[in-house]
Amino acid sequence: MKDKLQLMIPGPTPVPERVLLAMARHPIGHRSGEFQAIVARTTEQLKWLHQTSQDVLVLAGSGTAAMEAGIINVLSRGDKVICGDNGKFGERWVKVAKAYGLDVEVIKAEWGQPLDPEAFRAALEADSAKAIKAVIITHSETSTGVINDLETINRHVKAHGEALIVVDAVTSLGATSVPVEAWGLDVVCSGSQKGYMIPPGLGFVAMGPRAWEAQKRSDLPKFYLDLERYRKAAEGNSNPFTPAVNLYFALEAALDLMQDEGLDAIFARHERHRRASQAAMQALGLPLFAAEGYGSPAITAVAPANLDAEALRKAVKSRYDILLAGGQDHLKGQVFRIGHLGFVCDRDVLTAVAAIEGALVELGQPPAQPGAGVAAAAAILQG
Amino acid sequence: MKDKLQLMIPGPTPVPERVLLAMARHPIGHRSGEFQAIVARTTEQLKWLHQTSQDVLVLAGSGTAAMEAGIINVLSRGDKVICGDNGKFGERWVKVAKAYGLDVEVIKAEWGQPLDPEAFRAALEADSAKAIKAVIITHSETSTGVINDLETINRHVKAHGEALIVVDAVTSLGATSVPVEAWGLDVVCSGSQKGYMIPPGLGFVAMGPRAWEAQKRSDLPKFYLDLERYRKAAEGNSNPFTPAVNLYFALEAALDLMQDEGLDAIFARHERHRRASQAAMQALGLPLFAAEGYGSPAITAVAPANLDAEALRKAVKSRYDILLAGGQDHLKGQVFRIGHLGFVCDRDVLTAVAAIEGALVELGQPPAQPGAGVAAAAAILQG
Repeated sequence: MKDKLQLMIPGPTPVPERVLLAMARHPIGHRSGEFQAIVARTTEQLKWLHQTSQDVLVLAGSGTAAMEAGIINVLSRGDKVICGDNGKFGERWVKVAKAYGLDVEVIKAEWGQPLDPEAFRAALEADSAKAIKAVIITHSETSTGVINDLETINRHVKAHGEALIVVDAVTSLGATSVPVEAWGLDVVCSGSQKGYMIPPGLGFVAMGPRAWEAQKRSDLPKFYLDLERYRKAAEGNSNPFTPAVNLYFALEAALDLMQDEGLDAIFARHERHRRASQAAMQALGLPLFAAEGYGSPAITAVAPANLDAEALRKAVKSRYDILLAGGQDHLKGQVFRIGHLGFVCDRDVLTAVAAIEGALVELGQPPAQPGAGVAAAAAILQG
Repeated sequence: MKDKLQLMIPGPTPVPERVLLAMARHPIGHRSGEFQAIVARTTEQLKWLHQTSQDVLVLAGSGTAAMEAGIINVLSRGDKVICGDNGKFGERWVKVAKAYGLDVEVIKAEWGQPLDPEAFRAALEADSAKAIKAVIITHSETSTGVINDLETINRHVKAHGEALIVVDAVTSLGATSVPVEAWGLDVVCSGSQKGYMIPPGLGFVAMGPRAWEAQKRSDLPKFYLDLERYRKAAEGNSNPFTPAVNLYFALEAALDLMQDEGLDAIFARHERHRRASQAAMQALGLPLFAAEGYGSPAITAVAPANLDAEALRKAVKSRYDILLAGGQDHLKGQVFRIGHLGFVCDRDVLTAVAAIEGALVELGQPPAQPGAGVAAAAAILQG
């Protein structure tokens, strides 16, 4: 049997039927009153999701486009920035910053470990000249399933007083609380195929007042990613360039679903799935890759000890049609990742755990106790 | 009655049902073999549409993103370029070039007039030092319904020997022949919501061998729009950043339809609709805005003499639910535009003409002879 794929990767994530049907609606004119009403409504919904009264802008592009926009709009050539790097996405923002001629200090942690807030505190406190213009950080590191301590690092940034914080919230927004305004997060970037539960193609950038101040001074060249153009257009509930109209239809439908569920329930569901996934993997004798206490609510990375992670992933795909994510770069074959982000229900987590156990049996490495994974997950889900 | 909108704007253009249904398919993993097969297939189809054996790359973004990518990948800071400017999009590419610190010489024509190839010849011949690195030109100027003489201007660029040609083919590709390889067009950019018959959100950049040579030397900062990343990923039928998966589904479905129809038939259809639209407007006593002989096969701009163009556009929308485009910038109220680009059949053109006549009657300015517009259009369509 074909066509019964279950996505358990960190993006694209599963998409609800009503969002898919919204995608299939015939496009309308993007300068029409009807479309302006959708922009107005989704903008309010995006502010709700970001827990902010300030601007949240929508781009046609991937999460990387949103993050690049966030970086290049608030900085100028030669500006000193600190980039946190504990995975593939942290690495990527270092590359973006360097591509634009920024002076980048990298604070690294091993893949699987969280960034150390103390390292940020020390670097920021040592900067008595206030040369550091921004701290760029990945909240949930998709490549390793680690969530960084954004709240504490942000506190150190705030104590510095000058530096902005630019946050990659691509796999944290909609999975855990990112209180943009309460924490004073200056720039927060995300993408549609994650917690938003819609297909890829939209990027989002939340900008606070200090970010806009910096935007006025920024001299890095940009046009399509120039957020001032988006801000001005947004004043008239419009877009500076032709927006991805059908993805807007999907956005409205998905945000309706999210508002029906409520932020607290969404975050609790992701937290429950994180705990259930972790407990299940441990019960199956599969070590977690992320350091204890730093597992992302969006994704659980697993590093099986005596087993090719790709072989397991393929067994799960071929027999159960569940797509897990593999390890990236040097982790290929060592790690597989379970995405539990977005439109994922308890049943999906149980199913994935059961399929992983099935694959272990198939690969000749059954768990000590049959059914241990599902039992551990169920105990938490029914908690 | 609601929900029977007919789009006759130059984008988004009408989308076939099977393309809409493809949009509603559940996303799949963008690193899966199944998706790679779609990338491989659509890449071949895109080469067919561009009449080239060389690279055609796909970005998640609007046509402006594609055009910005085309410009910034083949140029370096301070490079001298010539930009043709005879409408809103010509103006836009001047702004992009200036935003990146290029040394821009603008060759202008009045809105409604074509660019003068002789002006390009003169500027290029005068450049004995071969300082001009690129000529940037809009093929079909969407804002005015003028098609520029790309073939002749390109011949002058080729005679120069050094300058590249960068073409905005956003509303010409899929409406008229753009033989990328035969003409040696170095960079050709387009967007999905036009001749492609799919919703907005994808941009396309065709790059020839001389463009890739220039790409290696280019020092303009870029990351998301760095086409070398797309070229490398394309070698493995992949994308450097998460692609807009559902728009790829739509792309494949739309290119299937285009291949079924055939390039010659597609171009003949657009040419027929241009002639029918022009003849109908003249029969209704409505002057054409584009200079004679330079009407775009994608769009007919009309400048009614004693009538508010917006009033006519609104009458057509409210009574017949046909969306025409208005005039942009200083042409607002003076011009309306009939889009006949992409998924438009003879019936659609007849309908639009009939509705425009109906609106003229409603506004107290009936044509001298009732039915003259439809009769003129039909004579050409039945040709």
